This record gives sequence, C-alpha cells and structure tokens, in this order.
Amino acid sequence: MLFPIMSVPDRYILTITCPDTTGLVAAVAGYLRDQACFIDESSQFGDPATMRFFMRAVFTRSAKSPGIDAIKANFANIAAPFEMKWEIISANIKPKVLIAVSKFGHCLNDLLHRWHTGQLAIDVVGVVSNHDDMRSLVAWHGIPYHFLPVTADTKAKQEQQVLKLVEDTKADLTVLARYMQVLSPDACQALSGRCINIHHSFLPSFKGARPYQQAFERGVKIIGATAHYVTSSLDEGPIIEQAVERVDHTQGVADMVAVGRDLENVVLARAVRYHAERRVLLNGTKTVVF
Amino acid sequence: MLFPIMSVPDRYILTITCPDTTGLVAAVAGYLRDQACFIDESSQFGDPATMRFFMRAVFTRSAKSPGIDAIKANFANIAAPFEMKWEIISANIKPKVLIAVSKFGHCLNDLLHRWHTGQLAIDVVGVVSNHDDMRSLVAWHGIPYHFLPVTADTKAKQEQQVLKLVEDTKADLTVLARYMQVLSPDACQALSGRCINIHHSFLPSFKGARPYQQAFERGVKIIGATAHYVTSSLDEGPIIEQAVERVDHTQGVADMVAVGRDLENVVLARAVRYHAERRVLLNGTKTVVF
Amino acid sequence: MLFPIMSVPDRYILTITCPDTTGLVAAVAGYLRDQACFIDESSQFGDPATMRFFMRAVFTRSAKSPGIDAIKANFANIAAPFEMKWEIISANIKPKVLIAVSKFGHCLNDLLHRWHTGQLAIDVVGVVSNHDDMRSLVAWHGIPYHFLPVTADTKAKQEQQVLKLVEDTKADLTVLARYMQVLSPDACQALSGRCINIHHSFLPSFKGARPYQQAFERGVKIIGATAHYVTSSLDEGPIIEQAVERVDHTQGVADMVAVGRDLENVVLARAVRYHAERRVLLNGTKTVVF
Amino acid sequence: MLFPIMSVPDRYILTITCPDTTGLVAAVAGYLRDQACFIDESSQFGDPATMRFFMRAVFTRSAKSPGIDAIKANFANIAAPFEMKWEIISANIKPKVLIAVSKFGHCLNDLLHRWHTGQLAIDVVGVVSNHDDMRSLVAWHGIPYHFLPVTADTKAKQEQQVLKLVEDTKADLTVLARYMQVLSPDACQALSGRCINIHHSFLPSFKGARPYQQAFERGVKIIGATAHYVTSSLDEGPIIEQAVERVDHTQGVADMVAVGRDLENVVLARAVRYHAERRVLLNGTKTVVF
Repeated sequence: MLFPIMSVPDRYILTITCPDTTGLVAAVAGYLRDQACFIDESSQFGDPATMRFFMRAVFTRSAKSPGIDAIKANFANIAAPFEMKWEIISANIKPKVLIAVSKFGHCLNDLLHRWHTGQLAIDVVGVVSNHDDMRSLVAWHGIPYHFLPVTADTKAKQEQQVLKLVEDTKADLTVLARYMQVLSPDACQALSGRCINIHHSFLPSFKGARPYQQAFERGVKIIGATAHYVTSSLDEGPIIEQAVERVDHTQGVADMVAVGRDLENVVLARAVRYHAERRVLLNGTKTVVF
Repeated sequence: MLFPIMSVPDRYILTITCPDTTGLVAAVAGYLRDQACFIDESSQFGDPATMRFFMRAVFTRSAKSPGIDAIKANFANIAAPFEMKWEIISANIKPKVLIAVSKFGHCLNDLLHRWHTGQLAIDVVGVVSNHDDMRSLVAWHGIPYHFLPVTADTKAKQEQQVLKLVEDTKADLTVLARYMQVLSPDACQALSGRCINIHHSFLPSFKGARPYQQAFERGVKIIGATAHYVTSSLDEGPIIEQAVERVDHTQGVADMVAVGRDLENVVLARAVRYHAERRVLLNGTKTVVF
Repeated sequence: MLFPIMSVPDRYILTITCPDTTGLVAAVAGYLRDQACFIDESSQFGDPATMRFFMRAVFTRSAKSPGIDAIKANFANIAAPFEMKWEIISANIKPKVLIAVSKFGHCLNDLLHRWHTGQLAIDVVGVVSNHDDMRSLVAWHGIPYHFLPVTADTKAKQEQQVLKLVEDTKADLTVLARYMQVLSPDACQALSGRCINIHHSFLPSFKGARPYQQAFERGVKIIGATAHYVTSSLDEGPIIEQAVERVDHTQGVADMVAVGRDLENVVLARAVRYHAERRVLLNGTKTVVF
Repeated sequence: MLFPIMSVPDRYILTITCPDTTGLVAAVAGYLRDQACFIDESSQFGDPATMRFFMRAVFTRSAKSPGIDAIKANFANIAAPFEMKWEIISANIKPKVLIAVSKFGHCLNDLLHRWHTGQLAIDVVGVVSNHDDMRSLVAWHGIPYHFLPVTADTKAKQEQQVLKLVEDTKADLTVLARYMQVLSPDACQALSGRCINIHHSFLPSFKGARPYQQAFERGVKIIGATAHYVTSSLDEGPIIEQAVERVDHTQGVADMVAVGRDLENVVLARAVRYHAERRVLLNGTKTVVF
C-alpha cells in the first residue's frame, strides 16, 4: 500500500539524506526497532553517481514506544555520525499549500476537487492570482482568494505581495498551477524546494513560452507535461513527474492544448501528492521520488 | 485539426453507414463538390469483416452553395441507391446531455469543468442522482439537480422517473458518470446508442461490482477504465474508449481507486466528446471512432 | 542503478519471505553491517492484506567480511526466529534457462539476441520445440536444439521428454516463448515457480486460444501481453509483467498480431530478467516484483 | 485493416500532395470509380496551417478496369489542374532497403527478423557498416555485408563509398540503424526523403551525442526514441515516429540504454514500415503519417 489516505494516529514519516556508507539502514532500522516502532513502508536508494544515500520510512508507534519527542531527540545521536539531514514528521500533518493561478483554471479546479473530496492530503490556505477569473470557483470551495493584478511596472511589487502572502499564510508549499508570471531569481531562491510549477511540455523540450505551439511546429508525435521545483533557471528545476500522450498530424495547437490539459492535471496533482507525502528528496539538480 | 472548438457558421457534419461497394466516396465527395461545399475533414472505413462502410465528413457551405435544407433534401438521392443510413447536422448544434451520478463526483466535476470552460461542446440539461451529495456543485454551475432516491422497492419506479427526465429534458445523450444503479433491459433498450457508461476496469476484465478489488486480487500490473454504450448485457456494450495506467504490488485497492479516477475522467470525457462530435458509428457490437 | 549488467566479484542477492513483524529490516541490515557488507540495493514490502513481508537486498562483501559460506551459515540464526524462507546466491550466477517454442519465433529470436549480446544474464542451455522451424536460428547461436514433435497420441509422452530435458539440462527456468502446447497439471506442478509463459493478451481478458481474435471481436481499443508463472489453471498463474498498446477500428486480427509481437517480446524479456535477477517473489496467487 | 500483409494482385497505392481546394476528393474518388477500381483504404488531410492537401488511397483493379498503365496515364489529367505531386505504385512492390549499422546490432537484428519472417514488406539489399561485428548475423540471413571502415582521414571517402553502394544496390531507402557516423550535408541532400535515422532520445530533447547520458543528467522521468528523415541539420529532420518509456531515479545510464533499445527497435521498425507502405508524406519540416 502506498501512503494511507485515512490517517492513522501515531504514524510518522522519516526522511534522510546523507553520504552513502555501510550500516545506514541497519542504524535506522535498528533504532526504530529499539523504539518498538513498526515500519509500514521503507524505501532507500544509494546513488552510485553522487555517492549520496536517500531514505524514507513510514513508521507507527506502539504502546511500548517512547513519546515521539523522545524518539526525535534521540535520533539525533544516530544521525550525527552519518552526517544525516533528516526529519521526522507526523504523517497526519497536512502541508499548508498556496496555489497560484492565472487564467487557465483546469489545474486549480482539479487540485481543489481532489482536496475537497479528501483525495489530496493538503491544507489549501489560499489561492492567489493576477486575474480575477477564478474568484467564484475558489469562493465555492470556501478558500480565500487573493487578486493581485500585475503590470510591467508593478511586477516586482506584486511579487513581493505574493511572497508576503506565502509568509502570512505560513504556506509550506506554493503551487504554480498555470501561473503565467516568471518569478524573479530572488523569489525562486526564497521558495527553493517548496515551490512546484507545472510546465506544459515534456521538458527539456520546449522551454519557455507557448510550448504547444513549439511542439506543433516541430511536428512531434508525443506531447507531455512536467512538474518541477522552481529554480532561477527557467524550466530547468529538478523534475518531479512527467507524463505524455500521443498526437498526430491532424491535431493543431488547440487540440494539443486540450490533450495537454489532462496531462497537466494529472502530473501536477501527482507531484503535489508526492511532495505532501514527503516522497521527493533532492539529489543535486535531480529528484529521488520514493 | 480535429473538430474546431470555436464554432464556424455553416459548418456541417455528415455521417454515413451502408454496405461497402465501389463508388461510395466518389458519390459523396462529388455531391459535396457540386454543392460548392469545402470538405474540412473526412474519414471513411470499409470493414472487411462485415463488409460495411462508414464515413464521417465535416464540410462548410460557401457563398455559391444552396441552402442547407436543399443540400439535405437532395442528398437523399445519393443515399438511396447505396442504402445509406445517414445524417447531416450543423456542427454548431450541441447535443443535450443529462448526467447521472451517485456518490463519486470526480467524473461529474470533470465533465462540468470542461463544459463550463467551453472545452466540451455539449449542452448539459441536468444532473440526476440517487443521492443528494452533488447538489451544491451542480448548483454552482447553474444546472438543475434532480434528486431521485432509490431503494430496492422503488428501483423500477425511480428508473421510470429517470427515463421521464430524459424525455422532459429532450436529452440526446445520457451519461452515466459513476451512476451505481444497473439499468433494466427496457431502459437500456430505450436509451440504445444514446447512453454512455464509464466502467472502472479495462473491459472485458473485471465486469460488474468492485472492479478495483477484483484487479487487486488478480494481481494485474496495469489497470484501466472503459467508456461504452450501455446495452442490456452488463458491461458488454460497444467500447468507445479505454485507457490504462501501470500499478505495482505496493498499491492496495484504495491506491488503485485513486489512480483509476484519473483514467475514468479522461476516458469518459473523450467518449462524450467523440459522441458529441459524431465521431462514433456503431459497427455491430463494436464501434468505429473517427 | 538497477542490477548491474557487468558482474562484480563478491556481490550477492538475498531474498526473504516471512510473516511481517517489527524488527525485520533491523535484523537483516544489522547482520549485513556486522559482516562488513555494503548494501548496494535493498527493497522490502509488507503486504497489509496478507501480513507477509518480502525483501530483496543486493550486497557486496568487503575485505573485512567473513567468507560467503560463513555469512550464509550464520544468517540461519537471524532467519529462524522470524520463520524466514530465504536464499543468498551469487549475483554472478546466471540461471540455466531452457526455452520452449513452437512456430512463432519472435520471442525466441528476441531472447537469444539479448542473451547473445550480454543484455540478459542467463545461461541458455537449450531450445525445445514441437516443430523443426527454429533449428537454423538456434544453431547459429550455438545452442542445442531439441525437436520433440507431438501428436494427440504422443502428447503425454512428449511432455515427459520435455520434463526430462529440463532435468538433464539442469534448467533453473523454463520459458514458454510462444510454445503452443498446454502443459498437464502434473507438469505445471513439477515446474511450479520456475516456468514462465507469455500469453498474448492482457490477462485476465481473453484467456485460452486465439486471444487476438477474441480481442478483435470484442472491439477493445487497447491490446496487451502478459508474462506469468505457469500453474495448472490455464492462464491464471501469478502475473509478473504486462504491457499494452493502443489499437483502433482499422486494425484487423493480423494487425493486432503484429502489434502484439512487440509487446510479447518486451514483456517476456522483462519477466525473464526479473526472475533471473531474483526480483520476483511469490505472494499467494500474486507476485511482488522488486 | 491496415495495409494487408499478404499481397493482393492488382492492388495499388496512390499518394498525392497538392494545394488544398474544393473538389479534390471528388476528383480522385470519381476517377477511381470510373476505372471500376475498389478503394480498400483511403485517408486524406488538409492542413489549415499550410493549406496543403495530402491523400493516400489503396485501391484494387477489377475485371472491368483498364490496365494499370492506362490508369496511371489518364490520372495525369486529373492531377494537372490541381497541381498534384502524385504517384501510383503496386502495393506488392517492396522497396529496396540498405541498412547501415555500427556496433550496436539490436535494431539490425530486429529489422532482419521482421524481414525474414515476412512481417516487414521490404527487400533488404545489403548491410553496410564501419565495423565488422555484424558480418556473421547478416551472413546467416543471406544478405551481402559491406565492411567500410572509417577513420578521421577517410571519412569523406568512406561516405562516398556508402553513397555508391546506395546507387549500386538501387536502394530506395537507406536506414541508419544505429549507424554512428554523421552524414555530410551533401550526403543528406543526396538521400533527402529516402534516409531514415533512429535517434535514441525523445527529440527535440537531447540531440547529438550520448543522449541517454544527457537524459540521466537532466533527471527526466520518461525517456524516448525518435525515427526521422535525415537532413543536414543534425537530429532535426521531419519526425516519423516516437515512443517513450518511464524511468526512475534508480536507473543509471546503462539501464536507460537497455530500456531504450526496445524503444529504438519498435520505433525504427514502425517508421520503416510506414515508409515502405507509402504512409509518410512530407509537410515542410513535418510529416503526415496515414
């Protein structure tokens, strides 16, 4: 079973990144056993290219286990000699998510529907947009809508407002759900590792503007969508998920846009879920997705 | 280009089914040329197994063309010697669609979003359900909601109410968007060729109830969804569209349900679009999809 | 990295199946650490449905490790309290494989090419067939060819000859690469867990004879192929791998056969590789594929 | 049914490219009817972007039809006013194909197996290579092998020898089946529209050398292969076919190479078949594939 949709009391997610060496799994699994914790799910990966080790474990406390604070505190002793970057969080904590959107609302509608029906374990704290079009949809879901229009002159200032919103809402994750404003390098830096974008092409093909137009002109036989973490290099951040669909010569740009919408929905929703379930670990410019 | 999303005045769709023989395309294309009509799109298929011929053409009237009523009237002379079953309708006419749903609203939400944003050229005339759960969503879209609860005792009567609703709303198409009531043979007959169901398996595998549970128990490595016309043989009607996704041993039934939702959305939306655009012609127990 | 294609001295594969409980990973990983072994790759899965635990680890001995015989001998002490069914084998040992074929040689050609070019770490000990058609191809590869013709009268006897061949060649795995003879229940039992068949449909749809014909008649929009362990229930053994491809109304049975060949090649080759690399563990009537 | 695998006497393929206008299909279909020919299969496409029209029809002469030479001769009268570029060839004529290969023989083996077993209606007139590795495989198939080694100094001269071989063998099509020499602009020009290359990436991503290495470094979640006509712009020729497969973080370059081989085989074989069956028409820098 993947991550349980229903919440289980006392279930936790442990994530680890560190240099690869002998005894890592033994140390972690041994520690959890000694705390009388049951491992529900565990994945690990040693990258021979970077010699880095990655691990994600989902475990449940038992009646014999110490309190979670003690489990966390003592894990530091395990982590230190291995130089682990690690985190233990409750599997029941839903990350606070701010969604940014412009005029195309399909990804927004899809994310909100999944959230609304309990399929996506996130806590949507708001929707921000440079247009007012999605206000009614968002209002129906009972979520605050922040209309922050932007012009060439106000671009820098509006971005500051968006960043302030991230801060005010305490958003753990910002999702660019077809938000058509390129973030400044500073904003990318500020949201590093906690901002996911959906790009409507099979990256690295067709970066930048109008990717379906580019795909049409190149005459590709398959189109795609890519969810990635935002970095200051446009459309070059670590890829989390991709999906593709076949097209043919009869399909014009509008047809590709229509096919692409379904890809964008699915790819972005998966990436948000993987991130929310702590499945994504950064490995340089790439990702490990457990 | 597939069917144009924007409407074009004086664009029409011609569909034909008849015994296959020499001269069919010549007769049809010659007729349209003689009416000064431009063929935007044309597909034809002769089935060597059944010796049946199928054709769909999209054409546009020009300034030199006769009126559409004359074009239709005179086409009968072409059609008769070939024993054609045929139809010419305006490409701008959106079929009236009644959507039936039970408790799972993902397909409904998906169809309504596509309709709302102009991606799906249908005219949703109402939503009917044996539950009251979807009322608010449907109301937000400004569509009438018909709550027709059903019990074992009232099943036949409730079905009559549904059929009356089809009649009253003049629905051209009824879409069972995860409607969990099996229609009686009489109802299937009454809606023959104008009722599409989404079944949450890759038919003919896992007919009937709880297909994801069946798939889980069989240990398949790929799951799917199937849109088909409803017939009195449960889940055996002509298949319009299918899609699949990979699963593995880690995924339990709930995970398959989650993966399946995305398949169901896409497959049902495509089937409805194909039907609305007159792309689906019946070929015995199978379909030709142009 | 998946299983390394080049061989590494002193690399071993450990596989475990046992009841799930606390401390399993800790025990195994701790043991390997104590033997100064480096874990190259490790996967584990606890099935909540059956409460069974499955594990596969690839590890490498270091200069400080005991001999492999000692490592194996002492692992028994770890395994016993957990009631583990386990095995430790050298990752460099290639399983001996006997391939059975009838008249369609595409899977045979594909497997032999992969083997010949070092892509498939198996040791092909022979090819057996009820026809003589593939003799020349097999001879070119320098592999013994066993022509064992069969008639209705000699079916039982011929099967005995095939089983004797399995024994004589010490085959660890028998691959039915489009071998068109149904094995008797006794033969299925004798080869249980070490006989892989390729069925040319997306099981459980279209069991038995002429699956492409069945698929054509049902009018499916996607066809598939399935590799599974052979059991006495025809085409119902545990599924190892499946793949699918889209078809449409223009494609007759011969076209489906052509599309299917490519699926069969890939699916069977993957299943054989997974088995050879000890990635497949049986979980009742299903498989865990690491 | 797609193109029939078995040959039918008196079956022909007509291909047309011309400016799009009213009456094209009527003219062509009317002409074939007047010659008492039966249309087995017909596809046409009007590209709204380029206003070009493309058509491919497969037809069979009847007892009442004129001779094929007369049919061809008189078709010129139909073609002229529409400025058609057209061709009528026997569906039973197999194009002469020269295959070029370097050290990776999987595509070669795959093409030869398809040819050998009658799955691919081509006439392989020879294999040329800058290495001697594939000699034995090619010899087994009874095909001439041309070993033309190349060094930095002899590159131009060797290419001349390859081109002469194309001429001497009267090859209609040259297939670069993992031939690792970049052709000069002159050679690309000489083979324009009759030379297909398989590139081991999902173009336009990862042009040039070591595409799997590039894909690995970028961290894509899906890899692909592309068959295209060779032009003087490296890896930028009109795309005929593409296919993709999912990969994940556990897969290194060698694993991607292994996955990619299966994609390359299938994609190249399809492209060659489409070309051989006259399904591919050039539309500027893109293709129409019927």
